[in-house]
Amino acid sequence: MIKVIAFDADDTLWHNETFYLETKEKLKRLLTSHVDPALVGDTLDELEVRNVNFYGYGIKSFALSMIETATRLRGDRIQGADIEQIIGYVKSMLKAELTLFEGAEGALAELSPRYDLMVITKGDQFEQEQKIARSGLAGYFRFIEIVSDKTRSDYQRLLDKYDIAPEEFLMVGNSLRSDVKPVLEIGGQAIYIPYALTWSHEHVPDKDLKGYQYHELEHIGQVPELMQRLNSRPKIE
Amino acid sequence: MIKVIAFDADDTLWHNETFYLETKEKLKRLLTSHVDPALVGDTLDELEVRNVNFYGYGIKSFALSMIETATRLRGDRIQGADIEQIIGYVKSMLKAELTLFEGAEGALAELSPRYDLMVITKGDQFEQEQKIARSGLAGYFRFIEIVSDKTRSDYQRLLDKYDIAPEEFLMVGNSLRSDVKPVLEIGGQAIYIPYALTWSHEHVPDKDLKGYQYHELEHIGQVPELMQRLNSRPKIE
Repeated sequence: MIKVIAFDADDTLWHNETFYLETKEKLKRLLTSHVDPALVGDTLDELEVRNVNFYGYGIKSFALSMIETATRLRGDRIQGADIEQIIGYVKSMLKAELTLFEGAEGALAELSPRYDLMVITKGDQFEQEQKIARSGLAGYFRFIEIVSDKTRSDYQRLLDKYDIAPEEFLMVGNSLRSDVKPVLEIGGQAIYIPYALTWSHEHVPDKDLKGYQYHELEHIGQVPELMQRLNSRPKIE
Repeated sequence: MIKVIAFDADDTLWHNETFYLETKEKLKRLLTSHVDPALVGDTLDELEVRNVNFYGYGIKSFALSMIETATRLRGDRIQGADIEQIIGYVKSMLKAELTLFEGAEGALAELSPRYDLMVITKGDQFEQEQKIARSGLAGYFRFIEIVSDKTRSDYQRLLDKYDIAPEEFLMVGNSLRSDVKPVLEIGGQAIYIPYALTWSHEHVPDKDLKGYQYHELEHIGQVPELMQRLNSRPKIE
């Protein structure tokens, strides 16, 4: 029944949030002799949420919010060297080695002869393209889609574009809000693989998912085996 | 013969470079009491080219290069207020009203019943999506593609994706390098509409275009009339 399996990328195929958290810690340490680290964290969180509307997602947006945080908290006592440091953090994030989840590549290798695999990832096009290229996984995917949001209508648009019926489509990801709920709403299936560090903005209150059925796995290496079980039992009871 | 007409967006459908130039002037004025304006311009140009490799294109990349310029030129005498100003410039660029080229909407309205219209634009996905939405032109386009580069293989990939034969495809844009040359190379046609302010990076030396034939118009409003002429004479002699 399922013909197309789509994967979220960040924190589903490879670690991502951990880079952001590490860089946030660097920013706290950079400002620590002048500013309470907790205040740095809170200010950055607040600015990130507020700035999504201007900048969208991604490392460059994060960079601008870090710089704004430093400037707001240090005012005219900001040091040029601090700003340069922050720009340095950002450039190393942009070029960092990706750490794939254990079993990710094996799962794709096993699934790709039997399904059309797809990446559907949110974020900055340039950054995501670079990550997909650096991941070494691009060859497993028939379609790669970098979208600026993952709402119900974004998924519907992608299914229309590739002429995929909802019942042929399954999405794998770490976000109930972006990878699971909208896909179930349009009649597709979803596998949720929780990630410990998932950004709080991504959480969907459980009540929103009442009445929806989706699969939950502990790690991505389990996807091929679940697909085999689903194939011998095409509908979720 | 032509079935699909694709348009570049920035500086083809609406003014774009002018926002960058205006903001660059603001940066020069901001630093003018301390730094020679010509040095500000040169440093920014140099950092922009160098940073494309890290950041890609778009307003956020420009923002980070402006901040790096100010920091490099002012060192530890940088003022927090200056950085805040730069962030302010950037946010207003991101929300600025788009100025469509005269005749752009009329041309699309005339062409859209007869051709599948497409946007193929380079740059930051989030920023370009927001601009297309704000432009009021989205309804004229069947396909919208935001790509991180416009090489021969990028165009080939798009034609394959939508099952378009090269001889059915015509691209309209202001860049010989990105909109004309690669399209001619894969067997499509192109209309070049020069824009006075086109970024120098976009220029292709004329010798590279020897042996290629493309159309050149003064403004976008002339596209429908040219298409009528091409239709009564389907091949370029």
